[in-house]
Amino acid sequence: MLVFFILRIGGIYSMLENCIAVLREKAPLIHNITNYVTVNDCANILLASGASPIMADDENEVKEITSICGGLNINIGTLNQRTIKAMFLAGKKAKALNHVVLLDPVGVGASALRTNTALDLMKEIEFDAIRGNISEIKTLANGSGTTKGVDADLADTVTEENLEQMVAFAKNFAKVHNCIVAITGAIDLVSDSSKCYVIRNGRSEMSRITGTGCQLSALMTAFVTANKEHKLEAAAASVCAMGLAGEIGFSHLVEGEGNSTYRNRIIDAIYNMDSNTLKYGAKYEIR
Amino acid sequence: MLVFFILRIGGIYSMLENCIAVLREKAPLIHNITNYVTVNDCANILLASGASPIMADDENEVKEITSICGGLNINIGTLNQRTIKAMFLAGKKAKALNHVVLLDPVGVGASALRTNTALDLMKEIEFDAIRGNISEIKTLANGSGTTKGVDADLADTVTEENLEQMVAFAKNFAKVHNCIVAITGAIDLVSDSSKCYVIRNGRSEMSRITGTGCQLSALMTAFVTANKEHKLEAAAASVCAMGLAGEIGFSHLVEGEGNSTYRNRIIDAIYNMDSNTLKYGAKYEIR
Amino acid sequence: MLVFFILRIGGIYSMLENCIAVLREKAPLIHNITNYVTVNDCANILLASGASPIMADDENEVKEITSICGGLNINIGTLNQRTIKAMFLAGKKAKALNHVVLLDPVGVGASALRTNTALDLMKEIEFDAIRGNISEIKTLANGSGTTKGVDADLADTVTEENLEQMVAFAKNFAKVHNCIVAITGAIDLVSDSSKCYVIRNGRSEMSRITGTGCQLSALMTAFVTANKEHKLEAAAASVCAMGLAGEIGFSHLVEGEGNSTYRNRIIDAIYNMDSNTLKYGAKYEIR
Repeated sequence: MLVFFILRIGGIYSMLENCIAVLREKAPLIHNITNYVTVNDCANILLASGASPIMADDENEVKEITSICGGLNINIGTLNQRTIKAMFLAGKKAKALNHVVLLDPVGVGASALRTNTALDLMKEIEFDAIRGNISEIKTLANGSGTTKGVDADLADTVTEENLEQMVAFAKNFAKVHNCIVAITGAIDLVSDSSKCYVIRNGRSEMSRITGTGCQLSALMTAFVTANKEHKLEAAAASVCAMGLAGEIGFSHLVEGEGNSTYRNRIIDAIYNMDSNTLKYGAKYEIR
Repeated sequence: MLVFFILRIGGIYSMLENCIAVLREKAPLIHNITNYVTVNDCANILLASGASPIMADDENEVKEITSICGGLNINIGTLNQRTIKAMFLAGKKAKALNHVVLLDPVGVGASALRTNTALDLMKEIEFDAIRGNISEIKTLANGSGTTKGVDADLADTVTEENLEQMVAFAKNFAKVHNCIVAITGAIDLVSDSSKCYVIRNGRSEMSRITGTGCQLSALMTAFVTANKEHKLEAAAASVCAMGLAGEIGFSHLVEGEGNSTYRNRIIDAIYNMDSNTLKYGAKYEIR
Repeated sequence: MLVFFILRIGGIYSMLENCIAVLREKAPLIHNITNYVTVNDCANILLASGASPIMADDENEVKEITSICGGLNINIGTLNQRTIKAMFLAGKKAKALNHVVLLDPVGVGASALRTNTALDLMKEIEFDAIRGNISEIKTLANGSGTTKGVDADLADTVTEENLEQMVAFAKNFAKVHNCIVAITGAIDLVSDSSKCYVIRNGRSEMSRITGTGCQLSALMTAFVTANKEHKLEAAAASVCAMGLAGEIGFSHLVEGEGNSTYRNRIIDAIYNMDSNTLKYGAKYEIR
């Protein structure tokens, strides 16, 4: 049985929009081992949110670097033998220090290297959060892949029709892996084993910008790191914030502008976002 | 003897502008092994064009990754021992699968490593297309280098004065290497062994943006992949589209804006380009 | 005893603003071994300044690549075992050819790898200039680190109160290491052993953009390379130019814009900057 709680923030649950205020106040340092495609945007969105980024991926320094940070974002977008080693070393060290650690399994299922690396990371590191599209998360759930590239397979999309089933899938994934899972797409799901935020912020045009998913993973790491006592709410807040930034950024586009300017506008919108914007702009329910 | 065909698109040959419509419809996945300087712009221009990018350069996954793609773009801009291996593996696999494979020999001639890598790649992989500036293509033709950096040597420029000779050079290069060659600069040449498109789109200010050449190579891979039955026309269409985007993007600049905003405007212009824009904006003749 | 020379440019010392004109005329090729986070912005700001960038970090080609350049910018932002080797090889070769070589010790003090690499580089390569924030330069001065991440520790900031002491520190550092040192922050210091430029251009919001420091290092390499007879003035000119670009760029921002658009505006401002802008906009004194 599913009980619906339609909760507009602004009601009794005000935790979600406070997460961004706390993030700006705490300004955590986030260690990113991430791909070289979208790394600059990840750094700028972290700065936009009030956090600070540091990127380091050499096995000889990642334990030290992650030690001075509050959170670690591992993104396998352009993994290689050298950086994979660094992911394991940094991830284990960060967990030993009780830091927040997130996995973004970019393109998992598209190669054995990606699938095995992601699954092995999950065996050795208890991630606080895992964020991916539905194809990626399904690959992790099944332990083998059907992903086509770095975008979600259309057949897998979360829709209003299969929402109940997908919510159950998310909760179960979160339970089995003892983490928060964020499945992002047209409808976003952010879940732990008992609750699932169903989020309807964002615009489809965001998928025509490279790295909006990577940026969200970096942002989520910062939100959760600054709000460790409310990890689920913080993760959901980051998804609302990113989607809302997509809506605000889009509203600022003028004729002739396209995905490259849109990229800047989204980061700009995070830069200007405050609790109030998030409070009145977040569109979600909890199931 | 050279026979001139001055063909404004909109005449009987309407293939060129259709290439962009077909690209948007087919939305091919393009595998890029490319430099870390301009990789983000390459990803965004591919998305702007309707294609999807994936970047992967570890020798343990490139064969699988390229297998799920339609085309492969190899760019040696920041090559290293690790990624060179991946270029060979991916290139051979892609050709075995009859995928479109393009080479962008960035800076070839500036070091023995670049020259040898490019020449060896050409020996082992039959590229569908090779795109570079005139200095780079001359280095490939001569088998040794005089390139100074990553920009074309002024002495080499294609001009109205040496055009006939350059067209012959392009056709011969295409014949010897059994590929399409695109020599880009103030005047662009796109040729197979029998025909040469002479293209006069673009603006000189584009050379003050890093990676417009890299972006064009990514775009060309997408155009040719989606239009495999008309490779030459598709390659020429991508060059016209990029140059035209440079013209449109420039027209949107306001006082105080410079090369960084211009970069965004060009990608935006590709995002908004349709067959009609290309039809009326493409400036070329066929020799 | 400190003697104050308050010199508004536009007075008898007109060297500083000429440095940008000379840079645009000479258009030097700058070799960058730099991090993959901010590399694209470094390339675009070099192009904006009139210089040309080339990035190459494989040990098998860096000596050749640096030989065709006029200056070398070494930035340890995402150093790894492979690129560290290239830094030493390129740095020694560039010095042997009497090229300008600059070190940006990003995050030095945050890991033993960074600290040891920076100190070893300084032992083996006589840098023309070293640019960092105060925490980084202090780490280099002490030979050991207290840096927290890639941003300066607040306790270390150069202020009006400790300015005299900091100027002395900068001069001494320059003397000991026989180089120009640039310590950048709210107040910037650019010094050789005898003179120190105290520069008050820039805006605090620049710190919310990733890589403004890296961009400045690239720009400084270009300024000094083009003005080798006036290295100190050229280094100071680059700091004034970057800070002024931050002021101009900020003045062009409209409501809703944030750090991502600001990034573009700063590079755009360098693109449009001429001697006159620098002459009337530079805010500095010499101590």
